[in-house]
Amino acid sequence: MMKIYLAGPDVFLPNPLQAAAAKQNICTAYGFEGMFPFDNELDFSNLSPFDAGIAIYKSNLALMDRCDLIVANMTPFRGVSMDVGTAFEMGYMAAQGKPVFGYSNDGRLYTDRVPVLTPGIDDQGQSIESFGMHDNLMLEGAIYTSNGIFQCEQASSEDYYTALSVFEEVIKLAANQLLKLAP
Amino acid sequence: MMKIYLAGPDVFLPNPLQAAAAKQNICTAYGFEGMFPFDNELDFSNLSPFDAGIAIYKSNLALMDRCDLIVANMTPFRGVSMDVGTAFEMGYMAAQGKPVFGYSNDGRLYTDRVPVLTPGIDDQGQSIESFGMHDNLMLEGAIYTSNGIFQCEQASSEDYYTALSVFEEVIKLAANQLLKLAP
Repeated sequence: MMKIYLAGPDVFLPNPLQAAAAKQNICTAYGFEGMFPFDNELDFSNLSPFDAGIAIYKSNLALMDRCDLIVANMTPFRGVSMDVGTAFEMGYMAAQGKPVFGYSNDGRLYTDRVPVLTPGIDDQGQSIESFGMHDNLMLEGAIYTSNGIFQCEQASSEDYYTALSVFEEVIKLAANQLLKLAP
Repeated sequence: MMKIYLAGPDVFLPNPLQAAAAKQNICTAYGFEGMFPFDNELDFSNLSPFDAGIAIYKSNLALMDRCDLIVANMTPFRGVSMDVGTAFEMGYMAAQGKPVFGYSNDGRLYTDRVPVLTPGIDDQGQSIESFGMHDNLMLEGAIYTSNGIFQCEQASSEDYYTALSVFEEVIKLAANQLLKLAP
């Protein structure tokens, strides 16, 4: 069974175990095995916070190495862009030649999210990239050059971080593409 | 001569050519060749914005493939975290087993930058990772497990995006480590 690395800031949700189970159930329904980076499966009792962080890093890399593709939650997180840890993981999987899929619960283009001072320039005087993409070009670049798929839709503010309808749509499309299942 | 991929949001500065030249001169002074992702070396005249973005993606990947290490500008950019395109590139280089170096012109830990609602929880009710690191653990994880080096220092607001003193310190340390030069 193909394994999906379920990347995203979902690990920071108030109930990450519940979020993981919901995503994994959707993966199973479409014929995939969903793998969730679980920090709490490791024993950190003897480690400093820093060493615990390094241990989680190594654990996440080992999990990515076992997965066949990545489906990244690219919903903006603590800023105008997606979670940086997830972006790192997209790069790691892209370098291995694995398909990169992504979704966002924010339907807006990047240019529509960055506060603008003058056209194309932000409030720090720095240029705002404008490629008709939803975040920095490296991210959708990885998706489209790896035959992955990106989908997005504006969720309400209440379920901006938790809605899974777009996620499910991407899993369905990935199944159609990679598992040759009927829709 | 070892080639450094100079990753960072410096490409969005008002004068990116000047920023690139300054970084490349420092690399040269310490015995490296600095490679800067130059969007404008490509001819986009016949491409849609989206296709231009894809072309830049491919160009940046080809450049990373030619480089021996990455030195990432991890200064926070449009949010509490670093630029997501740069984070992607750190993951791409880490997957190739190349050394990952980084610097930030922000000296604060991640936990000191995220607006806190209650201890360890942000204003969206999501947990704030606390590993004594300066951003998401995947980033410093990549640096320390690849024998790279991270340095940071709080720059003044005027040169927060342009200061190169910490960058130079990292290049010097990289030269000591990789080129076996005297300090």
